[in-house]
Amino acid sequence: MKIDELYALLRRRGVLWPTAEIYGGTQGLYDYGPLGAQLKRQIEEAWRAWFVGLSEDYYTIEPAEILPEAVVRASGHLENFTDPEVSCGTCHKNFRADTMLEATRPEGIDGLSPEQIAELLTANKAKCPSCGSTNLSVPTPFHLMFGVTLGAGEGEQAYLRPETAQSSYLAFPRMWEVGRKALPLGVAVVGKAYRNEIAPRQVLFRMRAFTQAELQVFFDPANFPVPLETVASLELPVVRAAQREGGDESPVPTSVAALVGDGHLPEFYAFHLAHTYRFYRDVLGVPSDRIRLWEKNDRERAFYNRIQFDVEVRLDSLGGFKEIGALHYRGDYDLNRHSVGSTEDLSIAKPDGSGRLVPHVLEMTFGVDRALWALADLGIASDAERTVWHLPTSLAPMTVGVYPLIRKAHGAFARSLADRLLREGIRADLDSAGTIGKRYARADEAGTPFGVTIDGATVDPASPDHGTVTLRERDSRAQRRLRPDDLIPVLRAAQQPQRPELPEPVVTGAP
Amino acid sequence: MKIDELYALLRRRGVLWPTAEIYGGTQGLYDYGPLGAQLKRQIEEAWRAWFVGLSEDYYTIEPAEILPEAVVRASGHLENFTDPEVSCGTCHKNFRADTMLEATRPEGIDGLSPEQIAELLTANKAKCPSCGSTNLSVPTPFHLMFGVTLGAGEGEQAYLRPETAQSSYLAFPRMWEVGRKALPLGVAVVGKAYRNEIAPRQVLFRMRAFTQAELQVFFDPANFPVPLETVASLELPVVRAAQREGGDESPVPTSVAALVGDGHLPEFYAFHLAHTYRFYRDVLGVPSDRIRLWEKNDRERAFYNRIQFDVEVRLDSLGGFKEIGALHYRGDYDLNRHSVGSTEDLSIAKPDGSGRLVPHVLEMTFGVDRALWALADLGIASDAERTVWHLPTSLAPMTVGVYPLIRKAHGAFARSLADRLLREGIRADLDSAGTIGKRYARADEAGTPFGVTIDGATVDPASPDHGTVTLRERDSRAQRRLRPDDLIPVLRAAQQPQRPELPEPVVTGAP
Repeated sequence: MKIDELYALLRRRGVLWPTAEIYGGTQGLYDYGPLGAQLKRQIEEAWRAWFVGLSEDYYTIEPAEILPEAVVRASGHLENFTDPEVSCGTCHKNFRADTMLEATRPEGIDGLSPEQIAELLTANKAKCPSCGSTNLSVPTPFHLMFGVTLGAGEGEQAYLRPETAQSSYLAFPRMWEVGRKALPLGVAVVGKAYRNEIAPRQVLFRMRAFTQAELQVFFDPANFPVPLETVASLELPVVRAAQREGGDESPVPTSVAALVGDGHLPEFYAFHLAHTYRFYRDVLGVPSDRIRLWEKNDRERAFYNRIQFDVEVRLDSLGGFKEIGALHYRGDYDLNRHSVGSTEDLSIAKPDGSGRLVPHVLEMTFGVDRALWALADLGIASDAERTVWHLPTSLAPMTVGVYPLIRKAHGAFARSLADRLLREGIRADLDSAGTIGKRYARADEAGTPFGVTIDGATVDPASPDHGTVTLRERDSRAQRRLRPDDLIPVLRAAQQPQRPELPEPVVTGAP
Repeated sequence: MKIDELYALLRRRGVLWPTAEIYGGTQGLYDYGPLGAQLKRQIEEAWRAWFVGLSEDYYTIEPAEILPEAVVRASGHLENFTDPEVSCGTCHKNFRADTMLEATRPEGIDGLSPEQIAELLTANKAKCPSCGSTNLSVPTPFHLMFGVTLGAGEGEQAYLRPETAQSSYLAFPRMWEVGRKALPLGVAVVGKAYRNEIAPRQVLFRMRAFTQAELQVFFDPANFPVPLETVASLELPVVRAAQREGGDESPVPTSVAALVGDGHLPEFYAFHLAHTYRFYRDVLGVPSDRIRLWEKNDRERAFYNRIQFDVEVRLDSLGGFKEIGALHYRGDYDLNRHSVGSTEDLSIAKPDGSGRLVPHVLEMTFGVDRALWALADLGIASDAERTVWHLPTSLAPMTVGVYPLIRKAHGAFARSLADRLLREGIRADLDSAGTIGKRYARADEAGTPFGVTIDGATVDPASPDHGTVTLRERDSRAQRRLRPDDLIPVLRAAQQPQRPELPEPVVTGAP
């Protein structure tokens, strides 16, 4: 499906729509409807279960979205969080220079001066995307943070946070006290970040307010043990920076062991890269040939990032591989900057007594809205008979629909069963409206993986099938009768969020 | 506990702390640590399960927190969302006039002119809270919305939403299409709202960024059937407006039937008021003698509210009854305003064909942060032996702690059990650090209602208790041995969020 077609479908089904739609909407802001809101919560929960599940010393916090100016001054955002803005001298609209150049210069324009960008625009005969004029200004930096003023009088300058990561860095000293006072220590945030895009586009891919899930792991670079053996033979679809220099951009399946060996990645990095890949493949259910781990080179990545792989997923609606998340080895940049900015000493005493250490940071970042779009792009399939959203069960907004064949005759049993399923912690949804075919169709479109139908036999004491219900599977459409007691464990096991398998010591006595 | 004492305790345990604390913090913004973040999520989930569970036609959405100016102009916030601000002519600090007068005028100053407020300040010999000067300005309206500018160039004026409710009103036409095209139709939002308080205070009670849970039910005032019989005999601790005119402010237990009868409340209002009360009493576990339903009179409530009861809870840390939530019958004000503002017709065709109707709105509003504070105020108890946070199990951040008595000998079994509990959907937390007494103490303070200990007998095939674990209950400290298979249903049943019992038709055949 093309982007417009997919967006129209998602609007129609109430997955999402433009904010303040009755006022004509506003660019770069979206509201999630019932299906979208629940799917988004499931994605967030799946991310937390997977990434925070990587260690007992990884925690989730929920910080405020507004940061005082001193914080974003120290982090460098006040100075550097800008896009080059070009104004059209004819129609007076504004555009991003990198967007205007992306067809002819896909590698981007990071590091170029305004004059160099202007030369490129001229050399490429760039035209105003709105009126077609070539009367374009030299780019000026446009600031991407939303400023707000706190309090009365002159007030205090503050900003909507440009990324959730900063909140985790600020929390480090508190988390050190609350945790085991040991490294590594992980601090995760799932929440809103804001970016005043000059030209929002591609629906959930360039929004002005978006949800990030980010895990910052603080660690001692001399000692970050990981159970590498659990993933050593896993092959990752990497595109290395060096390989790209030679013009080769196709993913090369490379084992984690090889990435650590000849590939010279640190073990801690390769371990988390492997689990990042597995999250996309096993938890989100992205086909492995649609995932690539794209290494940024020295010119492309921010100067404080020592290693960076973007996780990209190939989406038909957006015409190619698009970044959904990334893994950044940020060194000691962040805590050093905030040590200077806050004048608080954020170093810790080394456990071996050999002095003090400013912890390094490994960042796992993930765009929740982009992932939701990717699940729609990859999962919605139509044929002559029906439209199905092939969502993994642990992500589906509803695990099971409960359908009385005839509301009057079977509604009471259905209601009672739905209530029981909810009490058992299963995401169940009673639907009594319309023909059974229509209800199946609605559930297929919503990605509900199971349906349970209550019919005459269910409630007929004379029937051999008395007390049983029919379980229907979304993808295969296979049906079978079973008792509710046998249904519950099936549904519960299917809907659990996946957690990484970490090494388990030999168990004495089976729990 | 006094407010400062309780706040210090919550900071120490990492429940919450000031945003950007290493920069000295910033007024009115707080970050939730691991325990606070999980407790907050549990409160939100409990609210959703209860209120959205009131009808199959109540839904949750997740809209953006930024609204274009046209929306808040139509809603009246642009004009009216202000506080009277007094400036001190001596020290030049700013204060809220109503706060300065609250000791002598607890009923508030709504409806008074700036000159009348200035007279009251003089008559009460009000002094600057900072420097003590009586050189105070006549109050001026201070605007409480945070403005942001969207996009480049002159940009588009927008605001951080002052309440989540507006997002639900904007969604009405979409939700009408997505739902059954029938009233009543409920649209819930759990999310951030913003208020630029002149003087934030009382920690989570006057924040600049806070989380609301609000349900807007759109309905036809001529036809809003509710199963009143399910709550008819329930007694609610109401303080009626008329009773307060006579100076009597004590709650009078009054049955729902009586409130509908002699009390002249509409059935739909009394039904939702009863369930609101039950949420505080049964879900949050607030003792009934600490709850009062405080009816606002004509002068106190906003002009568009036809009926308003605030839900107040008596908190020792804040010295009395404090508002946590409310139930507002808002008439057709909201959709009428947005019909005018957006020039979209938000009326619907009456099902009986007798013309069109602008749906009325019943609003259930709830302060999530305030509720979290209330749970800390009411639930944390210390005696000579220990400190316990008596959280209801469905709200506890963790349902069960898993403790190997000796890490080396019992750690493998414990780890395997914790993994199994997580797979079964139980909020389990493995804790191997420190003496067993210290681990119990930590769990008691975190409100974890159950603990499971693995000891020598668990893993000793020769022991009669082989394969069993010890279950400890937080409140009673009672202990008993049982098998993991028997443990799981106990924990699962205990942690489920409560849902309202709605009338169930007679069931044929037991599911």
